[in-house]
Amino acid sequence: MTEQLARLSRLRARMKEAGLDGLIVSSPSNIFYLSGFRGSSGALLITGGRAVLFSDFRYRLQARRQAPDFEFIEVERRSFFTVGATAGAAGLKRLGYDPANLTCELRDELCEGAEGLELMSSAGLVEQLRAVKSSDEIALIRAAVSLSDRAIAHMIALLKPGVSEREIALEGEFVMRRAGAEEAAFDFIVASGPNSALPHAETSDRRLEPGDLVVIDIGARTAGYCSDMTRTFAVQSASAQGRELYRIVYRAQRAAAASVRAGAVCGDVDRIARGLIEEAGHGDAFGHGLGHGVGIEVHEGPRLRKGEEAELLAGHVVTVEPGIYLDGFGGIRLEDLLLVTAEGAETLTGAPMPPELPIV
Amino acid sequence: MTEQLARLSRLRARMKEAGLDGLIVSSPSNIFYLSGFRGSSGALLITGGRAVLFSDFRYRLQARRQAPDFEFIEVERRSFFTVGATAGAAGLKRLGYDPANLTCELRDELCEGAEGLELMSSAGLVEQLRAVKSSDEIALIRAAVSLSDRAIAHMIALLKPGVSEREIALEGEFVMRRAGAEEAAFDFIVASGPNSALPHAETSDRRLEPGDLVVIDIGARTAGYCSDMTRTFAVQSASAQGRELYRIVYRAQRAAAASVRAGAVCGDVDRIARGLIEEAGHGDAFGHGLGHGVGIEVHEGPRLRKGEEAELLAGHVVTVEPGIYLDGFGGIRLEDLLLVTAEGAETLTGAPMPPELPIV
Repeated sequence: MTEQLARLSRLRARMKEAGLDGLIVSSPSNIFYLSGFRGSSGALLITGGRAVLFSDFRYRLQARRQAPDFEFIEVERRSFFTVGATAGAAGLKRLGYDPANLTCELRDELCEGAEGLELMSSAGLVEQLRAVKSSDEIALIRAAVSLSDRAIAHMIALLKPGVSEREIALEGEFVMRRAGAEEAAFDFIVASGPNSALPHAETSDRRLEPGDLVVIDIGARTAGYCSDMTRTFAVQSASAQGRELYRIVYRAQRAAAASVRAGAVCGDVDRIARGLIEEAGHGDAFGHGLGHGVGIEVHEGPRLRKGEEAELLAGHVVTVEPGIYLDGFGGIRLEDLLLVTAEGAETLTGAPMPPELPIV
Repeated sequence: MTEQLARLSRLRARMKEAGLDGLIVSSPSNIFYLSGFRGSSGALLITGGRAVLFSDFRYRLQARRQAPDFEFIEVERRSFFTVGATAGAAGLKRLGYDPANLTCELRDELCEGAEGLELMSSAGLVEQLRAVKSSDEIALIRAAVSLSDRAIAHMIALLKPGVSEREIALEGEFVMRRAGAEEAAFDFIVASGPNSALPHAETSDRRLEPGDLVVIDIGARTAGYCSDMTRTFAVQSASAQGRELYRIVYRAQRAAAASVRAGAVCGDVDRIARGLIEEAGHGDAFGHGLGHGVGIEVHEGPRLRKGEEAELLAGHVVTVEPGIYLDGFGGIRLEDLLLVTAEGAETLTGAPMPPELPIV
């Protein structure tokens, strides 16, 4: 049985539990996960007995090659009318769809294609399956990790006064893509000096200065799977405060990572890091969640954040990335990617994370 | 009056004609066009007297800096509930929205936020304004054109047997980004040998061979505006058929480009190129429209295609890009970017387009 057929079989069990006769899949990530198809435009219809991929003439050959387990139906304009008509002709009644990944226009087309269909939200159904990675998927994530490890090694060598954030980001991305990455998993973040105090900094034309803190947050995508990692450095010299903040974040990262295992509650893992940062007096300066799943998307389930009651499962792949951001001073973030196992976790990231602020 | 205020004033006139009290703007390109805001998440509410930008805490500073003409309302989860509630509190009744750029989830939130609002499709309202470029916008498109001109000059030097399509695309993109492009306007297409016969080819690891046709289709984005251009080359030698096909496409491109002027009907411009290609016996091998508008998006209005009855207006910026694609043999496409004027058109693309197939 192919991996796609195994996924379909798990999905059909979930559909049955949810009382669905059929499911419309419209998010590109979910389409890729279930069928293998990576075209920019398409939809799936899954029923108890059928698995159909809809796309246009541009993807005729690609669809058959990438999604051999699926029937292919070629659509023209008003593609979701055809999806609806196919569902209607199959006699489906209760049809799941994902309201967060379908436009109003396409839902209208869908409804015009099939009279009397009862549309029900099935948000998260496929995403829950996606959160637990197979060994094939883990191998692809390892490949992406190895590409971002290579990129950051190259970027560290560029961390010198006078070099701009943008130059460092660009050179790192090029090294990664020359080494085989399909693309950057997200716009590389190189945030220096005051910019490092912004958790969602955009890479700018600012040039590095002696004494800067520099946060580097990068990821690769290869064969459809992502990596994600962050390191923080000081340029030429570091203040006592910078060194102290780094130690706090490092301890929080390590303690939280050590608590990751199948059965751990996501909110508890977040609390371990957050508690250490709060004790050090910087609770207000850690304004984001501790981590998130990584796979086909660079941000997916599960979420490691305050109050999250879900449990980690073996096969989840999650970031652990505490940070401290002090406006006007600068920021520190440290992020590894972890594979959850029954006994604990394996750190996938290969780049070293020194216990003391590295001065470059 | 700022350019954004002038755009709002034109939009309000259109809203009045359409009988709308207010308009929800959810497409990122339209949000940027009307407000100047470029964050990844946001929405606008425009009424006769107010212009409101909604976004989250991450974009608080950026919103005020980029969209000074707009009130800023910070939203948390269920952001469109807040948009709806704001519209409701303002006493609006008939509210326009764009069904192609709003998910079902967000429309549901919007409706929950405001009772008794009548939602009406206003698809295309902002896009029609965007199609006619101001002198500031034309300057930005010229800057993007100059970046892609520079990239293709670099790429031509790499067209040698043994070099892969992917390497050529990557090096071209890096030169363009080092020169200041924000990003590639789309994934660069380098399609060689049999791949050149696919109008929507994806760049592959195929290595160039002597005698290959190579289609290169690239564009830059800078300050939010795009360029788009295509050239075709032969590697080391060209067949008589390749040279003949190139001449046909060249003549079609030049004749269609010469017919571009304010008042010309879009479908007629397409027909001039298509007619020449049909006369040469290759009508079936030109399976796409002649061109499209370029601006904030690389594909926008107007459309130069069969049967399109709209007229070109001064200030439209359009591609003219006929092609011939012969399965198993290869393909030719030639594309320039043109600014429509009252008297004719100005070719913005600077890279040369030789009348005979260039052999490199």
